[in-house]
Amino acid sequence: MPMQCAIITIGDEILIGKTIDTNSAWLGRKINDLGFEIRQIHSISDKPEEINRVLDESLQQADLVVITGGLGPTNDDLTKKTLVNYFGSELVLDQEILDRLEDYFSKRGMDMLEVHRQQAYQPSNAKKLINNYGSASGMWFEKDNKVIISLPGVPYETKGIMREYGFDALQSHFDLPTIYHRTILTWGRGESAIAKKIENWEEDAKNSGLSIAYLPSVGMVKIRVSGIGDDKGVKSLVDKSVEELYQIIPSYIFGENGDSLELIVGKLLREKGLTLATAESCTGGYLAHKITTISGSSDYFKGSIIAYSNEVKENVLKVNKSDLEEHGAVSKSVVMQMAENVREILNSDYGIATSGIAGPDGGSEEKPVGTIWIAIASEKGVNAKLLRLGTRRINNIMTTSIICLGRLLQEMQK
Amino acid sequence: MPMQCAIITIGDEILIGKTIDTNSAWLGRKINDLGFEIRQIHSISDKPEEINRVLDESLQQADLVVITGGLGPTNDDLTKKTLVNYFGSELVLDQEILDRLEDYFSKRGMDMLEVHRQQAYQPSNAKKLINNYGSASGMWFEKDNKVIISLPGVPYETKGIMREYGFDALQSHFDLPTIYHRTILTWGRGESAIAKKIENWEEDAKNSGLSIAYLPSVGMVKIRVSGIGDDKGVKSLVDKSVEELYQIIPSYIFGENGDSLELIVGKLLREKGLTLATAESCTGGYLAHKITTISGSSDYFKGSIIAYSNEVKENVLKVNKSDLEEHGAVSKSVVMQMAENVREILNSDYGIATSGIAGPDGGSEEKPVGTIWIAIASEKGVNAKLLRLGTRRINNIMTTSIICLGRLLQEMQK
Repeated sequence: MPMQCAIITIGDEILIGKTIDTNSAWLGRKINDLGFEIRQIHSISDKPEEINRVLDESLQQADLVVITGGLGPTNDDLTKKTLVNYFGSELVLDQEILDRLEDYFSKRGMDMLEVHRQQAYQPSNAKKLINNYGSASGMWFEKDNKVIISLPGVPYETKGIMREYGFDALQSHFDLPTIYHRTILTWGRGESAIAKKIENWEEDAKNSGLSIAYLPSVGMVKIRVSGIGDDKGVKSLVDKSVEELYQIIPSYIFGENGDSLELIVGKLLREKGLTLATAESCTGGYLAHKITTISGSSDYFKGSIIAYSNEVKENVLKVNKSDLEEHGAVSKSVVMQMAENVREILNSDYGIATSGIAGPDGGSEEKPVGTIWIAIASEKGVNAKLLRLGTRRINNIMTTSIICLGRLLQEMQK
Repeated sequence: MPMQCAIITIGDEILIGKTIDTNSAWLGRKINDLGFEIRQIHSISDKPEEINRVLDESLQQADLVVITGGLGPTNDDLTKKTLVNYFGSELVLDQEILDRLEDYFSKRGMDMLEVHRQQAYQPSNAKKLINNYGSASGMWFEKDNKVIISLPGVPYETKGIMREYGFDALQSHFDLPTIYHRTILTWGRGESAIAKKIENWEEDAKNSGLSIAYLPSVGMVKIRVSGIGDDKGVKSLVDKSVEELYQIIPSYIFGENGDSLELIVGKLLREKGLTLATAESCTGGYLAHKITTISGSSDYFKGSIIAYSNEVKENVLKVNKSDLEEHGAVSKSVVMQMAENVREILNSDYGIATSGIAGPDGGSEEKPVGTIWIAIASEKGVNAKLLRLGTRRINNIMTTSIICLGRLLQEMQK
């Protein structure tokens, strides 16, 4: 049985849904990748009795307990005091942390308040985990051969501490098995259709001891193949299975693990020395945003003209006024002109355009909400496609953007 | 003591962090608003023994247990079978659901597979909660005066079922207290600075029995004031406290509850009959995306020119070549021209521009990563401001966009 991990998230803001818990997902993935089984994730309020109850329960089930949240400077954060009591400890001033805090605030030109100064006090029996991104340090407790880590709840602080100190410390402390995952990213078909196509493969993989999970996500399906064991054979078993999968559904697979369509498209554009521009109506800038989340995208992304009004389509994107009047903005002829013209105006190799009714209002019988035209222009000409999506605005915006990137990838791979 | 609710999320994809659990946050908020106290949120794997264990534990602590996930058509979804066993039930074909499924698939031109047909089988002792957004129905079980609801894990299905059937059923079934929340949204200062300014108010509010929570979020701080009781006095207590808060920090408050800066800015533009256009470099379309998440934004948002390359800044946005060469793209003179020119080119009342080094690479000693210029142009002229943010790309993109919207709001309120 693998080492067991329990994750606890503390704070009413998670329970009452004012904050979405992204830390547990990230910690679960990373700690699972180290070879732990994630037994449970628990979100509770910051009442001391709740923290004590769930800590007792988690320590019964797990070798490692990771707690996030409740370490901030404001008055509703009680975790540190509760942990100090739980582990029979006391708070002592840590001069190194105090120096770091003073440095942190002075560099940012911010006043250091008394609530911040209190963050330099650490439990006497905990190792500290330095926080280079904020004012609350992480804490590492040990009890009965088990490890309890407490981290601040702000996601980039949680991640920073674990990346820089936490994961290494876990690997040194625990005797962990060989674990191996690959997540295959597919585009263009839904979960059920993919599952149907690969059901025999899935059966074989499971029979050879691997776990298969489908991880749906907007516009794509992720297939995760996992193996765990005491030897290196696990890796070759997973690799062989993935290789078979590539042979069964080659045209749907666009990448693996942390890849994204915008990353793969960006790499290919860079390799080929080609550039891209977009002309967006219904996606409203989301497509350009996805492309520019990639650091270095300025090397291949020229920019975008977001033509939310017909006036901009006509005056800036130079779409024919008569086509706009005759066919409407959501039409094949308009979206094709948008793609061709943005390619010309922004001087790029590829031009992508979107025009549609994102919803939830604005549809008609002829063009209901979710009617969306997309087009891709290149030196070879321009192709348009009609999408018929649902009624949810944000989903239509995201799905359209992903389909545009997927089709551009196909176009470039031709 | 208020009615207690426990939320359970089922699925390895949550535990291993391949999917972020947004359902629990939404359910927690909505169910809390009904007057339940959210006792805990639990994420577990889809192993029957884990489901049984956590269901036992949750039923000991809560009057209502809401389970999401594990109802999809693929083979790793075992929840329904486990619940059927747990509640001593059996699966029977529900003709109404089967008819709906057939209709659902035929309308979308998709094949209905055997795995989908199985979703028409429902536990004999559960009420069904119709799903108008997908193929898996919700289930409502009752046991020892407690209610257990099982819902599919896809967020828009979860939400659709609860909005259309679930919340009403909960209000009819349970005798719920008066509960009242207001969440005040502030912009322009960090959590600690806000907390310091309102510490006396907070003390008073707590002394009168209210709960106060700080809910940080990128670029803003949310302050939640909550009261719970058996009479209507709770509402006036919360309202009075919030009124005092408005008097203490009037210039930081921009809205309440589900408001967002893009929503408030949009309302004000619409009221005043004014229009907006953006010229984005470092924000790469995210600012336009935020603005266009609001349905109906085409009434006041003309569009954007995303000038990721200097060539586009010069040729499309008509920024002086000499200024680009002399001062660089990330400079006061360039961002001011971008704002003024986009206002002219897109024929809008306001023009907002961003130009900066989003990171993580690309900084210099003179202009480190996080150096970002923003400008707002109107008929009254153009104002620029230099931001010095951090090194995290996505955070810089989001924070810059929020600051732009906040400053536009201030500008319009003058």
